[in-house]
Amino acid sequence: MALIRSWVESANVADCPFPLNNLPYGVFSTADEAPRCGAAIGDMILDLAGCEAQGLLDAGGTFAQPQLNGFMALGRAKWNEVRARLTELLAEDGNRDLPLVRMADATLHLPVRVTEYTDFYASKNHAFNVGVLFRGPENALPPQWTHMPIGYNGRASSVVVSGTPIRRPMGQLKGETGPRWAPCERLDLELELGAVVGADSAMGERVSVEEAEDMIFGYVLLNDWSARDVQAWEYQPLGPFQSKALGTTIGAWIVTQAALEPFRSPGPERVNPLLPYLQESRPGLYDLEIGWTLNGQVMARTNYNVMYYSSAQQLAHHTSSGCPMRVGDLLGSGTISGPAPDQTGALLEMTEGGKTPVTVNGEARTFLENGDEVALFAEARGEGYRIGFGPCTGRILPARP
Amino acid sequence: MALIRSWVESANVADCPFPLNNLPYGVFSTADEAPRCGAAIGDMILDLAGCEAQGLLDAGGTFAQPQLNGFMALGRAKWNEVRARLTELLAEDGNRDLPLVRMADATLHLPVRVTEYTDFYASKNHAFNVGVLFRGPENALPPQWTHMPIGYNGRASSVVVSGTPIRRPMGQLKGETGPRWAPCERLDLELELGAVVGADSAMGERVSVEEAEDMIFGYVLLNDWSARDVQAWEYQPLGPFQSKALGTTIGAWIVTQAALEPFRSPGPERVNPLLPYLQESRPGLYDLEIGWTLNGQVMARTNYNVMYYSSAQQLAHHTSSGCPMRVGDLLGSGTISGPAPDQTGALLEMTEGGKTPVTVNGEARTFLENGDEVALFAEARGEGYRIGFGPCTGRILPARP
Repeated sequence: MALIRSWVESANVADCPFPLNNLPYGVFSTADEAPRCGAAIGDMILDLAGCEAQGLLDAGGTFAQPQLNGFMALGRAKWNEVRARLTELLAEDGNRDLPLVRMADATLHLPVRVTEYTDFYASKNHAFNVGVLFRGPENALPPQWTHMPIGYNGRASSVVVSGTPIRRPMGQLKGETGPRWAPCERLDLELELGAVVGADSAMGERVSVEEAEDMIFGYVLLNDWSARDVQAWEYQPLGPFQSKALGTTIGAWIVTQAALEPFRSPGPERVNPLLPYLQESRPGLYDLEIGWTLNGQVMARTNYNVMYYSSAQQLAHHTSSGCPMRVGDLLGSGTISGPAPDQTGALLEMTEGGKTPVTVNGEARTFLENGDEVALFAEARGEGYRIGFGPCTGRILPARP
Repeated sequence: MALIRSWVESANVADCPFPLNNLPYGVFSTADEAPRCGAAIGDMILDLAGCEAQGLLDAGGTFAQPQLNGFMALGRAKWNEVRARLTELLAEDGNRDLPLVRMADATLHLPVRVTEYTDFYASKNHAFNVGVLFRGPENALPPQWTHMPIGYNGRASSVVVSGTPIRRPMGQLKGETGPRWAPCERLDLELELGAVVGADSAMGERVSVEEAEDMIFGYVLLNDWSARDVQAWEYQPLGPFQSKALGTTIGAWIVTQAALEPFRSPGPERVNPLLPYLQESRPGLYDLEIGWTLNGQVMARTNYNVMYYSSAQQLAHHTSSGCPMRVGDLLGSGTISGPAPDQTGALLEMTEGGKTPVTVNGEARTFLENGDEVALFAEARGEGYRIGFGPCTGRILPARP
């Protein structure tokens, strides 16, 4: 697929993350108007509530809401219809009288009201590396890992939009004679892609991988901040809890499945066949470069197609017990790590649990310091265009003792 | 405290679970009217939306909503004001012209829109017994267990009201040569009390145990249905996931903290001192008999005051990382078990992992069979009155292969 040219000239520039091929959805406000839904195009935001008010498209008034849940609930046929209509309006011969807002003049908000949040653990490199650090090499990869996408329920209330500061948590840390109460000393990031669920499933019913794919509205960048010392002390046997509740940052732009369609990519070879309910009829991953910077320095770059399970497989597994899913559910892919240290999505892995510091702008780092800023990035590259996700950043504030 | 007599005579009967001392809140509908909030009194429901419509009390219109979240969000001063007003209206010399509905003519609904659901693990007997079965006696009680109330995030979408059938889940079960896909063979209940959070806390801020207690609106019976074979295969290292997502049943009536106030009770002796952020200035447990029946036969009876951590301590710990809490959050106490087999809150414990069947109406049982009905019960006993919770039941439907 080639670049689809737009009359919004900034969308046609070679390295623009938001060409007409992309059209990610978000929620924005301006000095004079409350949060509403928009689509990114070049360096502008198309005011979708404004478009609907002008009679240019029909989304049942949902674009005037301060999150995309209402629009998502209208279903895939409506998603497709609106995408086709926006592509028409913004094409070179489109409508030049659209309500556009300069992105520089807008404030971006959380694009969805996150109903529930689940975090998976689907990069084999990451699972193995972290397993070695927490449990030793012989128990590194749990026995069920190659048979199911394991995950845990995270805390939806702690999901925040890119740019929100993240406070270093206090917590119980393991001491010599018992736990001590102290600021987290091993604060980390996790480089992930989040899938946004755009449809409900009923309690007691299972969803196939194909149906699951149809339920996914789109993807966001996701940083699952982690307090590794709190995690080590608390996580057995019930899994991570407060170590993962200090904040999870997502990007402000939801890149739709439609925009990523040309980038479908197979994943790594399977160690063993999957049970039928997890088998895919076509690749569910994407060829998508993804990485992160610390205080502006690129720390790691890898590809989303290293993952062992796709979001559709994760969603299908999520319903295997009959668990009902709802519009606005967010599924974290799990930390995305390639095999090499400069492909890892967490400092825990990159520094081998803090044993091998890395250098950031000349300073040694094992874990995150106060004032550090982490930014995630991702990009799919087509012929003459890119699909970007916008920033996903957070800066560390000192703990409140 | 003695019985407070009501002009609703059925509320004054000796074994009535809903005397005027109780006044639990719920949501009900009738043949001719949609779900709205009510309070149980004797064998009647006081229509609180109707009371407000008649100008008898003021709750900002929240009682006309189909869940109690709006009322809870009004805050503790309003909770106290409304409770005092209802006590006045229903007293012997009260208002005999109130909108009452016979409980037998009403359908009860989920009383809250559950925002997020967290399940704890706070009975030392249960944690030890289950730990032996899953990990052996030497690793039974995790090392942090006596220092913090451990828990995991459950799945709010799977919380249903008493009486909702529960479908036996399919799942991955560990086999000889790899997992197999089969109906759960070790389906279990968990006897718990759920605390309903009635106030928000801000991200990045911690809540003390005293503040946490003030945030708790009330308590419900809670059965956290569990697929033990799915759990055993999936739960390491991230904790239980699909094994706990098949359904969680809560009672339809929220018993307020105010009603339980006379029953405050200290818990078991502490193994070690707690860190200051978990210390209580007064007992946070209640002297509350709690138990369960299987197909009508009483299987176990114990007391909520065997728990090692109170809901207020759990809520305080939940915010230790700065995790924001919201109105409608539900905190499961963890399975409530006394030391003896006929005091255990799960079949896993009662049958020693299925090794020692129990007899139910003359039939042997290790785990739950299709058609089985589990009912939880709880009661605090005052002088001449009882505080009941109403039923919390569920019947097992066969799996959908």
